[in-house]
Amino acid sequence: MTMPMRNIKIILEYDGSVFYGFQKQPRHPTIQEALETALSKLLNRKTKIAAASGRTDTGVHAVCQVVNFRCTSRLSLAQIQKGLNALLPKQIAVREASEAGSDFHARYQARFKRYQYRVYNHPVRSPLRSNRAFHVPEPLSLPQMRAAAKILTGRHDFRAFCASSGAGSQKKNTVRTVKSLEISKKGDEIIFEVSGDGFLYKMVRNLVGLLIEVGRKERSVRDVERILASTNRCLPGSTAPAHGLTLVDVRY
Amino acid sequence: MTMPMRNIKIILEYDGSVFYGFQKQPRHPTIQEALETALSKLLNRKTKIAAASGRTDTGVHAVCQVVNFRCTSRLSLAQIQKGLNALLPKQIAVREASEAGSDFHARYQARFKRYQYRVYNHPVRSPLRSNRAFHVPEPLSLPQMRAAAKILTGRHDFRAFCASSGAGSQKKNTVRTVKSLEISKKGDEIIFEVSGDGFLYKMVRNLVGLLIEVGRKERSVRDVERILASTNRCLPGSTAPAHGLTLVDVRY
Repeated sequence: MTMPMRNIKIILEYDGSVFYGFQKQPRHPTIQEALETALSKLLNRKTKIAAASGRTDTGVHAVCQVVNFRCTSRLSLAQIQKGLNALLPKQIAVREASEAGSDFHARYQARFKRYQYRVYNHPVRSPLRSNRAFHVPEPLSLPQMRAAAKILTGRHDFRAFCASSGAGSQKKNTVRTVKSLEISKKGDEIIFEVSGDGFLYKMVRNLVGLLIEVGRKERSVRDVERILASTNRCLPGSTAPAHGLTLVDVRY
Repeated sequence: MTMPMRNIKIILEYDGSVFYGFQKQPRHPTIQEALETALSKLLNRKTKIAAASGRTDTGVHAVCQVVNFRCTSRLSLAQIQKGLNALLPKQIAVREASEAGSDFHARYQARFKRYQYRVYNHPVRSPLRSNRAFHVPEPLSLPQMRAAAKILTGRHDFRAFCASSGAGSQKKNTVRTVKSLEISKKGDEIIFEVSGDGFLYKMVRNLVGLLIEVGRKERSVRDVERILASTNRCLPGSTAPAHGLTLVDVRY
């Protein structure tokens, strides 16, 4: 008797600093490859994932990357989770596993995502934060950054914040809704929380990169208005580095 | 004209996970070696440190390791700090630099030290904490651990908590004062803060290891009393792993 096909949803946490991003590619370790290797071993047959909520770039972390895969295994959810955690490298863990409906797709059905971007804002770099927060030694103006963040919140054409090369940059529809963009300070860390219905390629890091320039007073709030309105892909701002970014929530 | 001899005190932060401890040794990267290499390059002459507040073991972190070294350089303190930070690997940084009196010695004059030990107490491991916190999947009883911590606080002969091999284990005087041993909970993390006038070899990790056994109810508070009173080096408890431990303060 064959088991019915199951659609398993798992939530992954990973430290992105040792991987070349989520998506499988030849000759470089990726999260997808590590996961599919562990899955194939556990299920004793070559297994690929069906989808992930999105691809994270090299160096980007996640505490709730959502992935689904199909299998006919008789293993319980607890056995799947424990088995994968025993087989995965220590930089990746399955935080939760559940049965999803047969039509569940981790990417197409994602309605909402939240990212956190951490800046360590102190004159001297901090080794214990080095893979987790972007070090900005110059003082940053919180009021200026918050005023700029207000302008970027809402439904806009974010073409100016879409990286000019790489997957996704050719998308015609570059209108997205940034539901919230909040900036808080905890000790010497400044934390940017960005949530929305979806993001263009490198959009979060481009938003944060521009906000940091505003915080340094290299750009004004007025510049941000102009850049957003330009919908010009040749974004005249910097991209904040990957290691400060963490995918923290996906909702369906 | 030669410059007078200076005695420079620096405060180091480091991520211990890639080093074989503080103290120099052949064939393995250590913090002392990385620091002396950077110092020698900066000062343009072979330079050794005079002392460090203490040796940290392989994997142990620090946010305030105090080191002093002598030199006749004309560089300002800011130049020394920036120069070292440019030359040191990213896992080590000089957080502060100051001129110390000619008799200052980072080890002999240390009067007080504080360590923090982090436990991640959740059924599933957390990759983003993997080098910084010890993963304990079983529930831990805070009241039990706190009752045991109370017994261990104060002036005692801590011979039972001194590792039976390695430097320092042959010391005759094993009486130390644990000024405070506090246990707090933040989300899924349990944090042990231990401060005192000095610690025996692996003493902090042996104290925490025993407290975790009490938290798991493998040992009673009464057992802790008995072990402390035994002053028997053959400690029948486990040593908590190095990667949860951080040296957080040294006072003179």
